[in-house]
Amino acid sequence: MATTAEAEAMRRAIALAARGLGHTSPNPVVGCVILDADGRTAGEGWHQRAGGPHAEVHALRAAGERARGGTAVVTLEPCNHTGRTGPCAQALLDAGIVRVVYAVADPNAKAAGGAATLAAAGTAVESGLLADQAAAVNEAWLTSMRFGRPFVLWKYAATLDGRSAAADGTSRWITSAESRADVHRLRAESDAVVVGSGTLRADDPHLAVRGASGSNGASGSNGARQPLRVVLDSKATIAPDARVLDGTAPTLIAVAEDAPAVRLAGAETVRLPRAISGPGLDIPALLGELHGRGIRSVLLEGGPTLAGAFLAARAVDKVVGYLAPALLGAGAPALADAGITTITQALRLELTDVTRLGPDLRITAVPAPTAPVAPEES
Amino acid sequence: MATTAEAEAMRRAIALAARGLGHTSPNPVVGCVILDADGRTAGEGWHQRAGGPHAEVHALRAAGERARGGTAVVTLEPCNHTGRTGPCAQALLDAGIVRVVYAVADPNAKAAGGAATLAAAGTAVESGLLADQAAAVNEAWLTSMRFGRPFVLWKYAATLDGRSAAADGTSRWITSAESRADVHRLRAESDAVVVGSGTLRADDPHLAVRGASGSNGASGSNGARQPLRVVLDSKATIAPDARVLDGTAPTLIAVAEDAPAVRLAGAETVRLPRAISGPGLDIPALLGELHGRGIRSVLLEGGPTLAGAFLAARAVDKVVGYLAPALLGAGAPALADAGITTITQALRLELTDVTRLGPDLRITAVPAPTAPVAPEES
Ligand SMILES: NC(=O)c1ccc[n+]([C@@H]2O[C@H](COP(=O)([O-])OP(=O)(O)OC[C@H]3O[C@@H](n4cnc5c(N)ncnc54)[C@H](OP(=O)(O)O)[C@@H]3O)[C@@H](O)[C@H]2O)c1
Ligand SMILES: NC(=O)c1ccc[n+]([C@@H]2O[C@H](COP(=O)([O-])OP(=O)(O)OC[C@H]3O[C@@H](n4cnc5c(N)ncnc54)[C@H](OP(=O)(O)O)[C@@H]3O)[C@@H](O)[C@H]2O)c1
Repeated sequence: MATTAEAEAMRRAIALAARGLGHTSPNPVVGCVILDADGRTAGEGWHQRAGGPHAEVHALRAAGERARGGTAVVTLEPCNHTGRTGPCAQALLDAGIVRVVYAVADPNAKAAGGAATLAAAGTAVESGLLADQAAAVNEAWLTSMRFGRPFVLWKYAATLDGRSAAADGTSRWITSAESRADVHRLRAESDAVVVGSGTLRADDPHLAVRGASGSNGASGSNGARQPLRVVLDSKATIAPDARVLDGTAPTLIAVAEDAPAVRLAGAETVRLPRAISGPGLDIPALLGELHGRGIRSVLLEGGPTLAGAFLAARAVDKVVGYLAPALLGAGAPALADAGITTITQALRLELTDVTRLGPDLRITAVPAPTAPVAPEES
Repeated sequence: MATTAEAEAMRRAIALAARGLGHTSPNPVVGCVILDADGRTAGEGWHQRAGGPHAEVHALRAAGERARGGTAVVTLEPCNHTGRTGPCAQALLDAGIVRVVYAVADPNAKAAGGAATLAAAGTAVESGLLADQAAAVNEAWLTSMRFGRPFVLWKYAATLDGRSAAADGTSRWITSAESRADVHRLRAESDAVVVGSGTLRADDPHLAVRGASGSNGASGSNGARQPLRVVLDSKATIAPDARVLDGTAPTLIAVAEDAPAVRLAGAETVRLPRAISGPGLDIPALLGELHGRGIRSVLLEGGPTLAGAFLAARAVDKVVGYLAPALLGAGAPALADAGITTITQALRLELTDVTRLGPDLRITAVPAPTAPVAPEES
């Protein structure tokens, strides 16, 4: 049984882990608190960026000699493999830690076994403390490990009647400044931001995080970092002066294998197979490509056609809708064809959060675990 | 200045007033608490049904001799005219009330002046206590007095992407049992329920309140009562076996002045002018007709075409949306053409309530007071 102090330390460790969101891929976010032999906090740490020390190492350094005889409380099972930074299980043993409490087991084959190594060396090991909360902060990485593809969050903005633009195509601004700032936060926590060619043509979006550095990957531990901007443009029609090509953040243009040759300053191009059915590129192939590049979380920013394709491919793990208290009665819908023709096939979700953002409402939902399988058409 | 006891009594009086919702039209809902000379509650009452005693009379009866030297706390300015039940201002004077605290002034010309009568007779009179809350419970009646038409609440049910049916037209059940029960509550609080011929044809709805009595108007003070069912059917195409014609509640079929002659068992027919522009009947004419029948609150149950017409006519005072956590990506939108073509013309609302109902979300909104006037097309 974990003590009250350990549960308190785990809550803190989860909060520390969250600070790494958007900075640690392809690694998970991890937080660690070292309690001394008397159960008092001796050190804290979190995994700040890929290539940097793991959470346990930061926390052990902060604890120094007070770690001896103490307990390590960590959000993820300590790793066992010698990667860029050496195995954490060994570091914990070397520091004289006698008890390890972790929340979530490491599903990563290469790293797993840290708990077994610790136990074999005589350390008391306990798992599962606040596992749900710790898994939630790491949902992107855990999803990536489970499915071999990035976690996909689809974000949309719409009126109460589900329109994302008026009849004449105008849409600035449906939602409030508060909602738009929140979207910037989502971007900053994501490894990649994805849009289709339709949105590119209609809005010429910039897709970068305001006030973040241009390099994708290691920047200062607290400095913001730009997600990879990804455009799905099977026919390679992107205009050379598109704002996503401005070099302020890395950009990837995905085109079809049979697309015309394209050479763009300010972006990399990748050729992908066409979708097996329907228009555009194969979504699983895109996600596989991004996974191979170490992308663990994708913010799907639309538009409605691409979102429909992701949903039809069952490749949306979370939905965040910004609902403006407004009505239009006409105009582009927030979501286009997702292959659903009758009500029993509706993609059922579960609300996980409802928050008022200024005048707007932010709705967060995940696919319902008991979602009925779509019956065959009769 | 009202005392703490008076504010407490007003809160109670507002709660009492709410018990009358759906039963008092064409009258307002009113609640009253009598405090004795020592400020203790001596009697309570509310206006229970049209034709029955006013709230003050109920409360005075309950207080008996304890009213002498006491204070009447009442949600609406006491009436001054001799209607079916005699003027309340005089009843308060006769009972020896020395102070009257009311929340909202009576905008009704025939009844106004109660406060002046009381003051002229030497009674201390104070107004405005908890006026916003008292006005909210009486919003239907106050709107009717202000605009000479019923208060209109548009209710819709939709998925998060704003669809009210799937591509093949199926829609049962988009929302949950909890949401559907809540709609029944809205119906029970409304004087009339309105749908268009499209909804009638597609759904053959019944539109009655479950477990309510068939007579529209006076029933037992706590017994439910059926709202008037209204169908807008300009061409008089309603099928004789439509469920709204079953006689369990009164029904009104509105047809165009030039519609074929129609004679329906189980319903009254009214002829209305056609809309000046667009399809169907003239909305202001309909609302005027209903107002003339003593209808103070209308629940507009759709469908999307009729809702668009009401919104275009600026004849929606409140919107209640039941959002199911589901996505469809195709199918009928919750709202059709409301005459809005560009984003600056969007009908801006203000969220007044957001409540989770089982798996669903109920959103309540009212037209934003600062809604910008739609600019001319350029
Ligand atoms: N409210 C919001 O949250 C929001 C967000 C974004 C956009 N929007 C609005 O949405 C509108 C654009 O809508 P849209 O639907 O045309 O844009 P879109 O979904 O961004 O782009 C659709 C295009 O993406 C390409 N694509 C590549 N692979 C695809 C695949 N597997 N499935 C589907 N498409 C694929 C296709 O073009 P190719 O064949 O050329 O590859 C397709 O036509 C704009 O008006 C924009 O303002 C709104
Ligand atoms: N999700 C929900 O909350 C909800 C609620 C209700 C209905 N629905 C769905 O909506 C669908 C029906 O949609 P709908 O749009 O056809 O139905 P509707 O709005 O109920 O009916 C439209 C018809 O009403 C008549 N009408 C009379 N006066 C009108 C006016 N001033 N403006 C507009 N119409 C007027 C017109 O027919 P005439 O010319 O014949 O008079 C018009 O075609 C059904 O599938 C139903 O299930 C959904």
